[in-house]
Amino acid sequence: MADRVLVPWEQNLENAPAGVRGDVYDGTGEPAADLAQVAFYVVPYGRPQYQRLDLMARMPGLRAVQLLTAGYEGALEYLPAGVELCNGRGLHDASTAEHALALILAAQRDLPRWAADQAAHRWQPHFTRSLAGTRVLIAGYGNIGAALEDRLAPNECEVVRVARRARPDEGVHGVGALHRLLPGASVVVLTAPHTPETEGLIGAAELALMPDDSLVVNVGRGPLLDTSALLAEKGRVRAALDVTDPEPLPAGHPLWEAPGTCITPHVAGGSDTFYPRARSFVDDQLRRWAAGEPRANVVRPGGR
Amino acid sequence: MADRVLVPWEQNLENAPAGVRGDVYDGTGEPAADLAQVAFYVVPYGRPQYQRLDLMARMPGLRAVQLLTAGYEGALEYLPAGVELCNGRGLHDASTAEHALALILAAQRDLPRWAADQAAHRWQPHFTRSLAGTRVLIAGYGNIGAALEDRLAPNECEVVRVARRARPDEGVHGVGALHRLLPGASVVVLTAPHTPETEGLIGAAELALMPDDSLVVNVGRGPLLDTSALLAEKGRVRAALDVTDPEPLPAGHPLWEAPGTCITPHVAGGSDTFYPRARSFVDDQLRRWAAGEPRANVVRPGGR
Repeated sequence: MADRVLVPWEQNLENAPAGVRGDVYDGTGEPAADLAQVAFYVVPYGRPQYQRLDLMARMPGLRAVQLLTAGYEGALEYLPAGVELCNGRGLHDASTAEHALALILAAQRDLPRWAADQAAHRWQPHFTRSLAGTRVLIAGYGNIGAALEDRLAPNECEVVRVARRARPDEGVHGVGALHRLLPGASVVVLTAPHTPETEGLIGAAELALMPDDSLVVNVGRGPLLDTSALLAEKGRVRAALDVTDPEPLPAGHPLWEAPGTCITPHVAGGSDTFYPRARSFVDDQLRRWAAGEPRANVVRPGGR
Repeated sequence: MADRVLVPWEQNLENAPAGVRGDVYDGTGEPAADLAQVAFYVVPYGRPQYQRLDLMARMPGLRAVQLLTAGYEGALEYLPAGVELCNGRGLHDASTAEHALALILAAQRDLPRWAADQAAHRWQPHFTRSLAGTRVLIAGYGNIGAALEDRLAPNECEVVRVARRARPDEGVHGVGALHRLLPGASVVVLTAPHTPETEGLIGAAELALMPDDSLVVNVGRGPLLDTSALLAEKGRVRAALDVTDPEPLPAGHPLWEAPGTCITPHVAGGSDTFYPRARSFVDDQLRRWAAGEPRANVVRPGGR
């Protein structure tokens, strides 16, 4: 019976419980391992071309697959019947929250303007906005939102939490309160997943309710924010976007040049913050595997 | 006897204690007030041309001057004998700490790179550094350093404090430990004032001790960091500078184009964060003035 593991980091084999044997494959080139012997496959992390989901078809003894991304929809079509699928939920929260904070601060403190002035050798100070004194509305308040709130806390700003359902005990408003809350928010951060309910969460009506010179930050998924509606604001509402709709944003798209808008190419979750967490998480999943314990983050149970 | 006040904000007169009378002057144009009646002058805040220090010479009844900057050296030559001088120490701490955090995050998360990619309509994600997992050395640890440390705390980084004199009870190292500590620091933030002792605090020897790809952030004063020594590093040590030497940085200076260096034009202290604090501080100084209490932040006592 196939009983080997295929993991992305040498550390995972070094830390593996006694009896767990396997190989390292980081997504570069072809794996040196005998794929017929792989029972537990940790899909390498990186750009899509390194995430070799296609290899599953060459692993007849496969029983479990671990992704290091939170999204797993794209893996389902590759997943053989009866194989357990686990995702990387939570591994990117700190990195994403840190990037959201970076985007908010950059926008409030005019860093893109200073970068342009630097390129032009121009020393022209002016007063800027700040994060302090603002009210920040986090829409889609969950793990990432909570990690962002932790980072906002010492910055003398007020946080308003909005999620799909109200959780009054935790001070979380339901999404029905969004229209009432938007006029009082200087910064709105989108951290929700993409679902039919969240698509277009911020559209023309919502942008119209936001104050002049307020800021919308999207570190969730592109379709949460209606691109055409944002463009129609012509910079009245500023934007800092790590995700866009469409994505990747093609050259020539008007969003690249939209006034008051800064764009990063979906990099919030992919910083150095991620790696120590991800390696430890894989170590722990291997320990559970060896001990016959249920894995964490199972998104599709196995059946064989 | 001259007994009127000249203040920058209408709010200060509205909130003034009974009996305090005066005028508002925000530095624009000439003051409408009778300068001969001014006993307490709050110098308007803004660019140097708005800080009308020269008006003191036209205030024969002047007894106290309040600056809204921390630096006061430039005001001494204008200060008539026997007039009390107070500075704005502390009013800029939160704004400066917030800007330092913005610079650190922008540098770690490659925001200048993404801004250049946006200008070129280029969607090319790559993994970035993070603030999490770094060790941040704050050199010149005082009020601004403490305000920065508060903001760093939830970001999963370690803070090392260095000041002129060691304060072991507060975990503050003396400057003598700097060379020992630099090799372990991924980020070094300069928050010290400019004194003969701090000039060139980070020079060639100190930069050489910093790890490859580490970051030096200067929100103190330009001369704390040796510009030539930084240029000689050719980007091995990255930099995020709100203050420079020389300052303002002239067009054509090589620092504008130094690899891995981002520059903001001495704007750390001048954000919206400042104003509510500054207005309240002036309110409080007027209250003390009216009550005959000693003012806060006296940097040169009055004598008449």
